[in-house]
Amino acid sequence: MRRPDTVILAHGGGGRASAELVEKAFLPSLGNKFLAPLSDGAILPPLEGRLAFSTDSYVIDPIFFPGGDIGSLAIHGTVNDLSMCGATPVYLSAGFILEEGFPMADLKRIADSMGEAARESGVTVVTGDTKVVARGGADKIFINTAGIGVLPEGVNIAATRVREGDRIILSGTLGDHGTSVLIKRKGLKFDSPVESDSRPLNGLVREMLDAEPDIHMMRDPTRGGLAAVLNEVARAAGVGMVIEETAIPVNGNVAAVCELLGIDVLHVANEGKMVAFVPEASAERVLSVMKTHTFGRDAAIIGMVGGTSAGRVEMKTSFIGNRIIEPLAGEQLPRIC
Amino acid sequence: MRRPDTVILAHGGGGRASAELVEKAFLPSLGNKFLAPLSDGAILPPLEGRLAFSTDSYVIDPIFFPGGDIGSLAIHGTVNDLSMCGATPVYLSAGFILEEGFPMADLKRIADSMGEAARESGVTVVTGDTKVVARGGADKIFINTAGIGVLPEGVNIAATRVREGDRIILSGTLGDHGTSVLIKRKGLKFDSPVESDSRPLNGLVREMLDAEPDIHMMRDPTRGGLAAVLNEVARAAGVGMVIEETAIPVNGNVAAVCELLGIDVLHVANEGKMVAFVPEASAERVLSVMKTHTFGRDAAIIGMVGGTSAGRVEMKTSFIGNRIIEPLAGEQLPRIC
Repeated sequence: MRRPDTVILAHGGGGRASAELVEKAFLPSLGNKFLAPLSDGAILPPLEGRLAFSTDSYVIDPIFFPGGDIGSLAIHGTVNDLSMCGATPVYLSAGFILEEGFPMADLKRIADSMGEAARESGVTVVTGDTKVVARGGADKIFINTAGIGVLPEGVNIAATRVREGDRIILSGTLGDHGTSVLIKRKGLKFDSPVESDSRPLNGLVREMLDAEPDIHMMRDPTRGGLAAVLNEVARAAGVGMVIEETAIPVNGNVAAVCELLGIDVLHVANEGKMVAFVPEASAERVLSVMKTHTFGRDAAIIGMVGGTSAGRVEMKTSFIGNRIIEPLAGEQLPRIC
Repeated sequence: MRRPDTVILAHGGGGRASAELVEKAFLPSLGNKFLAPLSDGAILPPLEGRLAFSTDSYVIDPIFFPGGDIGSLAIHGTVNDLSMCGATPVYLSAGFILEEGFPMADLKRIADSMGEAARESGVTVVTGDTKVVARGGADKIFINTAGIGVLPEGVNIAATRVREGDRIILSGTLGDHGTSVLIKRKGLKFDSPVESDSRPLNGLVREMLDAEPDIHMMRDPTRGGLAAVLNEVARAAGVGMVIEETAIPVNGNVAAVCELLGIDVLHVANEGKMVAFVPEASAERVLSVMKTHTFGRDAAIIGMVGGTSAGRVEMKTSFIGNRIIEPLAGEQLPRIC
C-alpha cells in the first residue's frame, strides 16, 4: 500500500508529485524570490569581483546527530568551503537524492534545519533538484550543495603562500564532530554529551580578514582532520612545521572518548573549526579578533611554520619529545560528512 | 582481499587515497588551471552581468547506455538547464558519490566522457568532491553537477512571459533518450538501434537568441517529457495551447518501441531537445536558424498558444480529434536521468 507520509518514486518523476514535494517539503523552509519560479535554474543579479565556487556531497550516517543533522551540515560545509577560499558565501544550490520510503517528516525536519542554517549563515538556497531511487538504491538521503561566493579585493588564500615563520592558528577545540557521530553510531553511553561543532565560519573569517587581509592560507579540518590539513599544506608549500600538543584545545569528553576508542584526535573530522596560516607580525592581532567571536573563543596559536625539514609535520609532545604527524593512509570513519 | 582496481572506502576519506583517486581518475580527463590547486573551492575571474545558477543530480540506471553515459549526461544536463535560462554556461562543479567496489576502469571511462562533453560544450569543471559509501549504501555511482552561466542583456526567459499567439517550437525528435534507456534496461533486442539524444544545447540556444533575443520561454523536456513542460508552462502563464500530433517529429524506431510497450512518447524523457515559445512575428526566422544547426535540423513548429481554455493543453490528432494532454501523475521510468 502506498503510504503518503513517505517519499515515493513519483516524487522524483518530474510531474505533479515532484511539484507537490517541492511545495510541501522544501518551499516552506527554503522558499525565496530566486527559488520561487521553480525553473531550470535561478537568475541572479550581477556579482562584483572574483568568485569562489565550491561543491560537496553529504552522505553522513546517522542523518541526525547531537548538535546537527545532514541538512545543517550541508549548509555549513559549503559555507565553510567558500569561507576557506576567503570568499563571502552568497548563493547555494541543493540537490537531494532520496531513497523511496524515506519518511516525509524527516525530510521536512531536514529542510527546516537547512533553512535555519542558511539564515544563520546569511546565504540563500536559490536552486535545487530532487531525485528518488528505489528502496535499497541509496541509504536514506544524500544532499549535495554547491555555493557561489564573492572574493574581496586583496585577499589571496593559497597553500603555496605559506612561509617560514607563519603562525598556525586553530579556531577552537578539535574532534567534536567526529566524536559525536561515532558515539551516536556505536550507540555508546557517556555521562557528559559530546555535540558536533557543525557551524558556519563565514562571520569569523570576515572579521579575521578585516584584521589582516594578507592571511596566507585557511582550511577547515573536516575528513582526515588536522593531520591531513597540515600535511597537505606542508607538501603544497614545500615547508616543514612544528605544532605543540599542549597548545591544541580539546574538550575533556572528546579526549576521553578518543582515548577509550584508541583514536587520534588529530585525525578526527571537524565541521566548525579552521586552521589559519598567518604572518608572524599580525598573528596575535588576528588571534585576539578571533577570541572575541563566539565561534573562535577557544582559538589558539598551536605552532609555526619552519623548524623541521620541508614537507614534514612534527608535534612537540609533553612526554616523548617530537613525533611526526602523518595523514591517515586509510579511512578512519566512513560517512562522517 | 583489497582489489586495487576498484573504489575503496579510503578513497573518500580525505587523506592520501582520496588525493590519489583525484590525481589518477579525474585530473587526466578534467584537469585545468582552476581545478589544479585542489583546494576547498575554485577561485574564478569576475563575470559580467546577471548570472544563472543550476544544479542536478544524476542517478541514471544503467550508467552506460547507447549514445552516452552518466558522465556525459551530467555535463549535458546542467549545460542545458543553464541554456534554458538563456544563459551561456561557463563553469561546472562535479560531486561524486561512489559505491565501494565500483570498478576504477568504469570511473575513468565516465571521467573521460565528462571531459569530452565539457570540451564539446565549452564549459570547465572547476571544482569537485568525492564521497564513498559502503557496498549497498548507494547504487554504483551518482553524480551531481552545478553550473554557473552568464545571462546576456535583453534576454528574459520566463514561463510567465508566454502570450497568446506564441509559436511552440520543438528542436527535434521526441523520446530518443528515454526509449534507448528503456531498451537497454529491459534487455530488449531490435534490428535498428535507438540512441540517446544526450547533447549540449548551448550552441543552438546562442544562435536562437542572436536571431530573436525576445524568446519568451525555453525548457528542455527531460523527466515527464513534453507533456510535463507544456502543462507547467500553461499553468504558470495562465494560457491554453494546442499542438498538432502530425507536426511532432519522432524517429520511426522510437515510435515503434513506444507503441510496442504502450508508452506515450509525450511522456518520455529527452536530454538533447528543447521547446521554445517564440513571438509569432519571429517564429519562422528562429525556426530557420535552428534548422541550420546540427542539433536543430529536425526542428518544427508543433503548435501555438491559445485556442483553448487557460491551463489546458490540447493535441489535434489525425484520428480522434482533439485530446487533452496531461502530465503523468506517477513515475513512468525511474532513474531515467
